[in-house]
Amino acid sequence: MLVIMKNDATEEQVQGVVNRIEDLGFRGIPIPGSLRTAICIVGNQGYVEDSQFLSLDGVKECLRVTRPYKLVSRETHPQSTTITIGDITIGGEKPVFMAGPCAVESEKQAITIAGIVKRFGAEVFRGGAYKPRSSPYSFQGLGEEGLKILAKVRQETGLLIITEATDISNIEMVEEYADIIQIGARNMQNYALLRKAGHTRKPVLLKRGLAATIDELLMSAEYILSEGNSRVILCERGIRTFADNTRNTLDISAIPCIIEASHLPVIIDPSHAAGRREYVIPLSRAAIAVGAHGLIIEVHHDPAHAVSDGRQSLYPEGFERLMQEIKEVVHVA
Amino acid sequence: MLVIMKNDATEEQVQGVVNRIEDLGFRGIPIPGSLRTAICIVGNQGYVEDSQFLSLDGVKECLRVTRPYKLVSRETHPQSTTITIGDITIGGEKPVFMAGPCAVESEKQAITIAGIVKRFGAEVFRGGAYKPRSSPYSFQGLGEEGLKILAKVRQETGLLIITEATDISNIEMVEEYADIIQIGARNMQNYALLRKAGHTRKPVLLKRGLAATIDELLMSAEYILSEGNSRVILCERGIRTFADNTRNTLDISAIPCIIEASHLPVIIDPSHAAGRREYVIPLSRAAIAVGAHGLIIEVHHDPAHAVSDGRQSLYPEGFERLMQEIKEVVHVA
Amino acid sequence: MLVIMKNDATEEQVQGVVNRIEDLGFRGIPIPGSLRTAICIVGNQGYVEDSQFLSLDGVKECLRVTRPYKLVSRETHPQSTTITIGDITIGGEKPVFMAGPCAVESEKQAITIAGIVKRFGAEVFRGGAYKPRSSPYSFQGLGEEGLKILAKVRQETGLLIITEATDISNIEMVEEYADIIQIGARNMQNYALLRKAGHTRKPVLLKRGLAATIDELLMSAEYILSEGNSRVILCERGIRTFADNTRNTLDISAIPCIIEASHLPVIIDPSHAAGRREYVIPLSRAAIAVGAHGLIIEVHHDPAHAVSDGRQSLYPEGFERLMQEIKEVVHVA
Amino acid sequence: MLVIMKNDATEEQVQGVVNRIEDLGFRGIPIPGSLRTAICIVGNQGYVEDSQFLSLDGVKECLRVTRPYKLVSRETHPQSTTITIGDITIGGEKPVFMAGPCAVESEKQAITIAGIVKRFGAEVFRGGAYKPRSSPYSFQGLGEEGLKILAKVRQETGLLIITEATDISNIEMVEEYADIIQIGARNMQNYALLRKAGHTRKPVLLKRGLAATIDELLMSAEYILSEGNSRVILCERGIRTFADNTRNTLDISAIPCIIEASHLPVIIDPSHAAGRREYVIPLSRAAIAVGAHGLIIEVHHDPAHAVSDGRQSLYPEGFERLMQEIKEVVHVA
Repeated sequence: MLVIMKNDATEEQVQGVVNRIEDLGFRGIPIPGSLRTAICIVGNQGYVEDSQFLSLDGVKECLRVTRPYKLVSRETHPQSTTITIGDITIGGEKPVFMAGPCAVESEKQAITIAGIVKRFGAEVFRGGAYKPRSSPYSFQGLGEEGLKILAKVRQETGLLIITEATDISNIEMVEEYADIIQIGARNMQNYALLRKAGHTRKPVLLKRGLAATIDELLMSAEYILSEGNSRVILCERGIRTFADNTRNTLDISAIPCIIEASHLPVIIDPSHAAGRREYVIPLSRAAIAVGAHGLIIEVHHDPAHAVSDGRQSLYPEGFERLMQEIKEVVHVA
Repeated sequence: MLVIMKNDATEEQVQGVVNRIEDLGFRGIPIPGSLRTAICIVGNQGYVEDSQFLSLDGVKECLRVTRPYKLVSRETHPQSTTITIGDITIGGEKPVFMAGPCAVESEKQAITIAGIVKRFGAEVFRGGAYKPRSSPYSFQGLGEEGLKILAKVRQETGLLIITEATDISNIEMVEEYADIIQIGARNMQNYALLRKAGHTRKPVLLKRGLAATIDELLMSAEYILSEGNSRVILCERGIRTFADNTRNTLDISAIPCIIEASHLPVIIDPSHAAGRREYVIPLSRAAIAVGAHGLIIEVHHDPAHAVSDGRQSLYPEGFERLMQEIKEVVHVA
Repeated sequence: MLVIMKNDATEEQVQGVVNRIEDLGFRGIPIPGSLRTAICIVGNQGYVEDSQFLSLDGVKECLRVTRPYKLVSRETHPQSTTITIGDITIGGEKPVFMAGPCAVESEKQAITIAGIVKRFGAEVFRGGAYKPRSSPYSFQGLGEEGLKILAKVRQETGLLIITEATDISNIEMVEEYADIIQIGARNMQNYALLRKAGHTRKPVLLKRGLAATIDELLMSAEYILSEGNSRVILCERGIRTFADNTRNTLDISAIPCIIEASHLPVIIDPSHAAGRREYVIPLSRAAIAVGAHGLIIEVHHDPAHAVSDGRQSLYPEGFERLMQEIKEVVHVA
Repeated sequence: MLVIMKNDATEEQVQGVVNRIEDLGFRGIPIPGSLRTAICIVGNQGYVEDSQFLSLDGVKECLRVTRPYKLVSRETHPQSTTITIGDITIGGEKPVFMAGPCAVESEKQAITIAGIVKRFGAEVFRGGAYKPRSSPYSFQGLGEEGLKILAKVRQETGLLIITEATDISNIEMVEEYADIIQIGARNMQNYALLRKAGHTRKPVLLKRGLAATIDELLMSAEYILSEGNSRVILCERGIRTFADNTRNTLDISAIPCIIEASHLPVIIDPSHAAGRREYVIPLSRAAIAVGAHGLIIEVHHDPAHAVSDGRQSLYPEGFERLMQEIKEVVHVA
């Protein structure tokens, strides 16, 4: 076994681990590295419980290699990244609220919802012009017409715009109209798209894939940073598990894990995780309390007639209540 | 329940299903569709075993409309249950805090930690006397000696005691010493133990199994209630998924789901979900914000020498900080 | 589809759902139960989007009776599809064997391995020219140079060529050189790529995503068929679960499930499922025994120096043994 | 990183790994242990791909500690265990077939089914007298009356009997009547039951829990062996995943993994994995082909009237076909 010490571990702490190893009847060989010391355990015939070392002072972890990412890592960039767009800053003390319909359906629908979410405190308007859908027979979005509607929303309300690029064929057009380019969960490992996103001049919101580990999410972000765009916002939106109580299982622990591993901001999408509007407000409270840098929420003034995801969209009253309840939690995170 | 017939099911097969439904004393209404026929079962007050239909000729599948539990259901008992033990009430407005070590190791250890957790606001002392361990060679708990130490902790500190019964051979002894009987995740479907717990006069904390759905957790609680003990507290403690960033994935959405489906109180164990003390405080904030009725937290004054789960135990300072941060969130939930 | 109303749904809410169903041109039949009402939708020939009902007042949930895919379904196309390319037929009695390295590394490497796999009975040579890799710093494939090497392999050995298209920017070039276009697991829901694949004149091997259900896999195949290319081969290659004994969990049951639901051929990739060469041979035996229409296997003459996936590549002797052992099972499936 | 060499690794192989490490610009320090050599990698600043070492000759694994089990391990007991009961041997060349209903319902039912399964080649009769059920309102088994029926089946047919002990309160009675004591998936970590099973004089069939890793299954077996009963048969019966095409996901890879790690025999239960009789035959073929030492199959002469699990029970004709198809695969494994 290899016990990895923290970077700032003292001589005494290293000796403490060696002593513990010797107490157990084994030998501990410290191997100084350029960043930190690792201690190799020798002489054990059988199982050694790693929790015996993990809880000693100065110990960082047992037995794990260094992570495969670099630019996104907090180890190489200890200070948290903040991303400023217009009047808002993502990744700072104050959480950011993005809200709007799943899909842009018409100018009237978009402007109506934008007015509502702005009134209750949203700063960014979300709405899909290009929609990735499981079925080829489902509504696929308005395309460029949708982007033009979004531009009009910005002009009329002053809200910033986030919308999804689903492929290298539309990311340049999305870049032209949007303030933040969204890359969806299904595309988290679409590397050509990630590279292109790395060449745009707009911040990118990268959603975690349904079956992606945190390491894989960070590796995908690394693709974007490695091409020159360091303004990346991560987004937890639920993972696929056996649990059938929600559409996906919101992995709330991802937030402290990502904040520990990376300097990039991270927000939560409770709407896609829950899949049902009834759970969106409690999950939003939890998201802010756990320390997320913001929320992206589906809101529709008439969910019953929404062309997609109506089940998880909040009514205007729901969004108003969400924003009120969040205020109570905000100063904690 | 709805019985879906295969596309090529014959008239006779449809009639066969209807006959079987009528044998059971219900009515079966065939509903012809363009591709296939579905048969709706009407008149059942409770649970109907679907295997009785699934094996009939021509049947494709059964879709269940009504949940299989009764006593634990909010449908049959709309008002939330509160459980009062001594001075505390679980399931009300104010969350309840349980804290202590994974295992009782000695009187000195237990009294020391109990003093600490009481000072910072815990109302219930946790500590295992019987420990279920994956390895037969790991420390298995002090047994009755541990229970006696727990009784002394109560006497000296006034804290209530929660401790685990691991089998029908020790539940009566646990009942004698404890204020709340814990049934652990590995025993969530140990039905003999559940039935015995239903005969005790103490409240029972029932933890969700690693791979249990919410419905299965509620069915296990139904075992306890059906034997006469309705003072059951549920506990979400993380589920097993592919995600490797935490020991288990805390299913935070379970709280609003359980509160919607059942009248029983539900708390969160962030320590076992996280598996690492670094994440316990943010997860505790999230737990309170999402609406949990309390927390159960591992605390140890000397985690490096704990006989089990030292990696996830908070230091006293950590627990102090947790309780301070929680206060900010409390009034929201 | 069946729309389940909440227990306390009003007469008006039930009527609202019926009205919405009639607006869509179908019939809605309310079926009152002892606890709640369900409404059956009759008269739809195809897919009905459930979100249209889920967001109506009083609706609890929707239960789907008919699957959302059409062209790939065995219900609409009962006879199994066979795909003939050159001398081989995929989807018939005789399983097809595809083998080769993870990546094309050089002409010498490709020709060497092709000679080996041909000698032991492979009919198709696999090798990646474009490699989707989690890390931007990993080897990304030789690109068009790799495709030219593959063409040379075909010329010299007579083997057919399968290689992966990773994006709409390279699928046309892949189409030019390959006999079968592979779409990898990470791209299973890259819909632009699927549509383009639907416009090519080459058969497409579509791999199941790590977290994809069988229905989602079939829906992705539906994208390809709906654009005019009906020569699609499905591939099970392991799903992501908690189990850590293999890189992914081979879902062997997927084969009878897919064969029941769809007329398309389906093969198994045991190499990516196992992640370790030690398990590739037993899994291959199981794959043939369960009824798969073929195998795609990683083989390398020098795995220790392979640029990727060396751990799961068979040595030439291993592939020889695999092909011998398979012969014993072949006539069963 | 720590590279673990095989026990029989040569000096040259160790040097080969050191050379590879040095090629990469790092230092490799061999640390001879009592059983084998480990090589510690020093001097790497970042990520080292472990596949570079895993595929070198003589390398066993990277970075993992020795497993926590001893008695069940093939390392401490290289020769495969065979268990002989009456005329049959489990764990040898010839697979063993266990078959019968989910639950013993009546003497007539048991004798009828036993006659059928014996006729087509089963050697062990399965049937539950104590049934663990998710719902307290479901049929819980005939208890001792069921055991007496099983004894009569043995007397009349000569078949051996396997039946489940669900708790420490019934294991002694089960021991009295059964030839093999079954411990079910829900009880895989019921340690009191495992210890009691270790004190019986009958072989024990231990089923893998729904969310158990192979290591955990082996640790549970270790409980039984550590109490003195070394006649343990393991059983893979499907794990819980997101995949909804079967009731559980049969982890077919578990067989080669267990055979590599342990000397104990391992069989497969395709009925509980599939949850539908349509898939039981192909999964049984796969089970034998992958190398399982036997099968345990649910068969019912009248599944439509079975009190439990009728959906997954084979009809007599189905079992006959299964046994015929299996014969074709048998000599391969």
